[in-house]
Amino acid sequence: MIQIAILGLGTVGTGVAKVVAENMRQIERKLGEPLEVKTILVRRFKDGPYRQLMTSDFQKIESDPSIRVVVETIGGVEAAYEYTRRALEAGKHVVTANKQLVAEHGCELLDLAKRKNVSYLFEASVGGGIPVLHPLTQCMAANRIDEIYGILNGTTNYILTRMVRTDAFFSDALREAQAKGYAEADPTADVEGIDAGRKICILADLAFGQQIDPAAVPMEGISKLSLRDVKVAQRAGYRVRLLGRAVRLPGGGRTAYVAPHLIPEDNPMANVEDVFNAVMVRGNATGEVMFYGRGAGELPTASACVADVMECLQSSPRRDEIGWSPSMEGFVDPLELKARHYFRIEGSLTDAATAFGQVEVLSEDGETAFLTESLTGRDAARQSRFLNVLACMRVLS
Amino acid sequence: MIQIAILGLGTVGTGVAKVVAENMRQIERKLGEPLEVKTILVRRFKDGPYRQLMTSDFQKIESDPSIRVVVETIGGVEAAYEYTRRALEAGKHVVTANKQLVAEHGCELLDLAKRKNVSYLFEASVGGGIPVLHPLTQCMAANRIDEIYGILNGTTNYILTRMVRTDAFFSDALREAQAKGYAEADPTADVEGIDAGRKICILADLAFGQQIDPAAVPMEGISKLSLRDVKVAQRAGYRVRLLGRAVRLPGGGRTAYVAPHLIPEDNPMANVEDVFNAVMVRGNATGEVMFYGRGAGELPTASACVADVMECLQSSPRRDEIGWSPSMEGFVDPLELKARHYFRIEGSLTDAATAFGQVEVLSEDGETAFLTESLTGRDAARQSRFLNVLACMRVLS
Repeated sequence: MIQIAILGLGTVGTGVAKVVAENMRQIERKLGEPLEVKTILVRRFKDGPYRQLMTSDFQKIESDPSIRVVVETIGGVEAAYEYTRRALEAGKHVVTANKQLVAEHGCELLDLAKRKNVSYLFEASVGGGIPVLHPLTQCMAANRIDEIYGILNGTTNYILTRMVRTDAFFSDALREAQAKGYAEADPTADVEGIDAGRKICILADLAFGQQIDPAAVPMEGISKLSLRDVKVAQRAGYRVRLLGRAVRLPGGGRTAYVAPHLIPEDNPMANVEDVFNAVMVRGNATGEVMFYGRGAGELPTASACVADVMECLQSSPRRDEIGWSPSMEGFVDPLELKARHYFRIEGSLTDAATAFGQVEVLSEDGETAFLTESLTGRDAARQSRFLNVLACMRVLS
Repeated sequence: MIQIAILGLGTVGTGVAKVVAENMRQIERKLGEPLEVKTILVRRFKDGPYRQLMTSDFQKIESDPSIRVVVETIGGVEAAYEYTRRALEAGKHVVTANKQLVAEHGCELLDLAKRKNVSYLFEASVGGGIPVLHPLTQCMAANRIDEIYGILNGTTNYILTRMVRTDAFFSDALREAQAKGYAEADPTADVEGIDAGRKICILADLAFGQQIDPAAVPMEGISKLSLRDVKVAQRAGYRVRLLGRAVRLPGGGRTAYVAPHLIPEDNPMANVEDVFNAVMVRGNATGEVMFYGRGAGELPTASACVADVMECLQSSPRRDEIGWSPSMEGFVDPLELKARHYFRIEGSLTDAATAFGQVEVLSEDGETAFLTESLTGRDAARQSRFLNVLACMRVLS
């Protein structure tokens, strides 16, 4: 009998308890012995099926030698950080879906885990139940990873899908997402790209082996996105999607950012709709591979946590491929990346051509929407400085 | 310094040597020490960069204690089976891309590996460089896997894509695939669904934990597929794709088969084109997740082998989730599965309605093409026995 503890009993924590109970047989067959939730840390006791397991005293978990794995589902940084440290110090494996904690303190916590000869795993922090981090670090371990991009936030993808399908403005689509429970009352972290930003940082940390601080990563969300741009792009054969993107640059540099992009409709990423997520990873041997599925939700995310619990118990914690150096050296502003750019300006085609030379016109109806040739974000900004720019986005090539 | 041997120096074997050389730095960083190809088993010596490493005597590899991992890229069963057994018996890990060997003898070889306390890994046998087997067995370990289906063969998908895009008959599209090097001179294993059949067996073995013999699995390819059906389906909002599919049935049963299907165009699988592969896995907690990329090719497949080499060296071989029971008990004929069926008949709508009651007409031009309600394959065959059936396919729902 293997015993674990859960910290927090919100959506993911409850899901972990459910998955452990519901898939008991599958889990026991693979582990060779049964898995049981022994203790659940809560702030306030609640009635329900887990009443007997609850404690509000972390000390009980920390000092219980029969608890081998702690699943942290508190979220945020403060308490989660403290309990994670203490659990690792006590020689327990820790598993989490907490992207903020991993993006901000993952490097240090992995290092602590290594010193204590235990694992710190966080597959569920990116893509919910979609396997992404393990495939990236293990199955693609023989590759040099050159680029990762993805639709990493289901809430914003749902909003973008609704804007296209129902001609809804951003604000209306957001209200609809909130009504359906896909967006929170305070949707800032989702719609401003912060959630996607934390996830692209974790992906980039693992792919490139060096820390990328979320604070250094430009994050642009979709709250200022105009329905007009979505529709112009659509008619021209593109879909607007919010992407997190990380790129390895020649000469050892690397960059990462979050922003809405125009994606050609024949790119598989263009057809990722509603709350689905997808992550594309480009390795120098494997080429592009894509992982697709529901990026959130109680059971998908919880099942990824439970798989990590099983992984902790089965494999040696000395896996050097999971972990990265704390150095931010080599991080480059994404403005250095080249791409075609979409512009919508208050002005004429002549204005566009004066600024950019050859352009591809997408619409002219009082305003002008067009695509530039490939150029750096820096040049795009410089060359457009005398234009009245209403919208600007990169085009994914 | 970790030393390995490669058996065979065809496409995949050469690729393994290249990936080990080209991505030396990435591999060393993750393993903690360099990886080197020490010996390559060939039948005939050839000049080239690997001339110094070649031997035609397997004994040299078998008895060399410095070789810790053997990568088998011979293909087929006979020699590959013998050398794999002997390498495992000698206490070496074995890695392969050989789907035929794994589908037919995987259960036994995994068992031998377990007894010898080494690993037998075969990520590259399904989906080439796309991570599929590890995500299925590890990342989704906390799920009960209920269904897997996929476009598992790039050659046939290329042919189907060309038929749609250029109105080509099967025979012409096949010749084009051969000219491009996507199909072999003898394309039987690809176009008759045998290659896809071996892969769906491996997926089903791992997902359901029990052997499925390739010989028991109905495999229908695309060599008899008519351009007319492809086009009728296309106009009705479907794509024709060759799928391998495995389903867990209520009450402990399971089934698997390969056949062309109609796929609704809004299913992500419908947009998988050319030589790309995709595998959809449905878990009871995670829901549907999809893995997508190039399913073949020298470097993708080789990089998956090298990742498996690294996995052997890093993790404990006692991973109970990789392996399955030899019992075929519970295997059910896929004719028991329910689905809507596509029919094209030499006959009228009245004939169709007489046989099936309510149907959805797709075309009436001398012949009649229609979709039935959902029914088992057995009922579809029984109810159509007095019709002159020109084509019949399942519709993926």
